Formats: sequence, C-alpha cells, structure tokens
Amino acid sequence: MTSNNSKNSFVGCEFTLYPMSDNFVDIILSALDEVDTSTVWMETDDVSTCIRGKMVHVYDITQAIFLHAAKTGKHVAMSGTFGVGCPCDTTDDVFLSEEDEPKNISKIKEINQKAGCKFALYPMGEKDYIEKIQEQVNLSKHRGVEVSPTHYATRLDGDVKDIFKTLHESFDQVQQAVSHVTMTFTISANSPSNQ
Amino acid sequence: MTSNNSKNSFVGCEFTLYPMSDNFVDIILSALDEVDTSTVWMETDDVSTCIRGKMVHVYDITQAIFLHAAKTGKHVAMSGTFGVGCPCDTTDDVFLSEEDEPKNISKIKEINQKAGCKFALYPMGEKDYIEKIQEQVNLSKHRGVEVSPTHYATRLDGDVKDIFKTLHESFDQVQQAVSHVTMTFTISANSPSNQ
Repeated sequence: MTSNNSKNSFVGCEFTLYPMSDNFVDIILSALDEVDTSTVWMETDDVSTCIRGKMVHVYDITQAIFLHAAKTGKHVAMSGTFGVGCPCDTTDDVFLSEEDEPKNISKIKEINQKAGCKFALYPMGEKDYIEKIQEQVNLSKHRGVEVSPTHYATRLDGDVKDIFKTLHESFDQVQQAVSHVTMTFTISANSPSNQ
Repeated sequence: MTSNNSKNSFVGCEFTLYPMSDNFVDIILSALDEVDTSTVWMETDDVSTCIRGKMVHVYDITQAIFLHAAKTGKHVAMSGTFGVGCPCDTTDDVFLSEEDEPKNISKIKEINQKAGCKFALYPMGEKDYIEKIQEQVNLSKHRGVEVSPTHYATRLDGDVKDIFKTLHESFDQVQQAVSHVTMTFTISANSPSNQ
C-alpha cells in the first residue's frame, strides 16, 4: 500500500441485517453461510458487522448477504454506512485480497428481488460537498432504478442488483474526487406495506 | 424563523425501527401508539420514518419509540440519521411546536433498558471536522455510559436514556459550532448475543 493510494486502497462497511422474523438468527446465519466472505476482513458483534477490504468485495458481500436473506420471503432490511479514506483510520483490520473478481455473483444470479432503498452521500472536509453529492444523484437516474428525492436521502426503487450497482458506482465516483467519503443506506424488501 | 437562526431552528431524523419478531407490525404500531408525536412533523413509508421539528422533541420521540418497542423484551434495533442545517433543505414538512418540554418523559420514566449503540458524527463542509468529532467523543465519557472506539463509529453501552442523552448532547454541541451536521446511529436491545 503506497501513501499516494492509501486513501482509496480499502473500503469499509458497518452494517446490520434485520430480518423481521422470530427466526432472525437462522436467517442471518443461513445468509452468511451462503456468502463467500473470504475476500475481506470481517467482525460481528451484537450491534453490527464490519467488513474491510477492496471496494469491489465490500459491495459484493453486502449485496449477497442482503439477497440471500431476502430470498426467504421474510421482510428483511439492512442499514449501514460505507466509508473510505478517513484520515483517522488505520490499516489494521483490513484484508486486501489479491482477487479482483467479486466471488458471489454466480450464486445470486438467479435471485430476482425488488427493494426500496434510501441512501445519502457525505463527502467530508469539502466546502463544495453539495455539488459533489448532486453530480452523483443526477447520475443515478441512468441506471435502471427509479430515483426520487426524500428528506436527508435519495430513494432508489428497483431490483436489488441495480440498487447496489447504483450505490457502488456513486460511491466510487465521489471517492475518486474526495479522499474521505461516507455513504449511509437503508434497503428494505418484502415489506407488508407493499403487498 | 429568522434567517440568522434558520440553520439550527429545526432538526430531522430519518430512522427505522426493527423488531426481530413475526409480530413486528404490532410492536411498531403499539410503540407508536404510546408515543406522543404531536410536537413534530412525521411521515412513514415502507423504508423509514422521517420526523422534523425542534431538537428536543426529535430526540424525545426517537427515544420513546425505541423504549416502548424494547420493553416487549423482543430483540429490537433502530438505525437512523439525525440532521440539521443542510443548505439544500427547505422549511417544508416541519412542525415547530410552541412546546419546549419533551412530552414523553413521564411514560418512559419506569422503563429500565440496557442497550448497545454505535454512532458517528459528520460535521459537513469543514476542513477541521476531525477535531470537531473528537471533542464530542471525549465529552461522551462523562455521561454515565461506557464509551469504546470501533471502526467508523463510537460505541456506547448503558441505559437507553443515558445513551440518547449522550447522542442528543453531542449532536447539540457540534451543531452549535458547525451549521450542517449529520449523526448516524444504530441502537440494539435484547440481542441474544448478550444473553
């Protein structure tokens, strides 16, 4: 890891999977069991899970965990924060796999799952952060997901894979321009409000 | 609302309550039923709930909703984002109650509930944002909650009322110094990991 690249060399995500079911433990453990997490550092406690590694794997794994839980048909949500380049961060607790290909694509290929998602981008330490956010929100309109404004966030509706692609690309684009970027997201599937 | 004060005149919170139970709908509706939300503007969709009003009421209501859900004994979590002073925000969808006293204190007084919480403060548009965060994280050590560092967040453990007091005071202190501030949080109670 060179100092020039270190700000963007790894991405983290702190997230929690929420199955609204008495069987929440089984749903979480079964989803984790189906997902290849060998490409990142990972730690779970009673509040959340943290993964740290290459950006491609962080998005691949969060998407796969959500999809394997949602395919149970239960109302499932995931809330979390993606982060990159925090100047206070260390390079401890990171695994940078040599692998560049996402490992979970083949197992989720057949899962078609609609969801609603709200996300917000926070480019840190920049006076013109609003412009950096707006450039990305405009871009999201071209990715096969329905985009709508809400207070404090942008809403995306569509297939889960299209939603995660939008999150990933928006985050990637902003972090190329700004060293420290945070993105919050909440994604929800199978809500009885939609049935 | 004068233009001088408008940046701090109302606070919003976008949050979701997650009861890990087959009875999640009942738990959410019962909690809402016990909480006086008349002091804020409020809207719920299938992904999250947004409330906007005076800071004191926004913290009072989120705390009360979480406590009334957690007292069922079910594993319950809440994730969300508090925000103030976004330069893109409007004063639409806000209710500024004339009331200054939190309305839900008496009904939660008897609820003693332990929880774990992770939160992160994001002062926007400031080059010295790291210092602004660290000042607050140091302060939290004096509020009767156990404070520990984690990746991307600070962890608080203790009674739910002490945790919300810490969140509220930290947010308030930073927003007095920085016009646009965001705070993410995830709070979790009755997790089987702790039993």
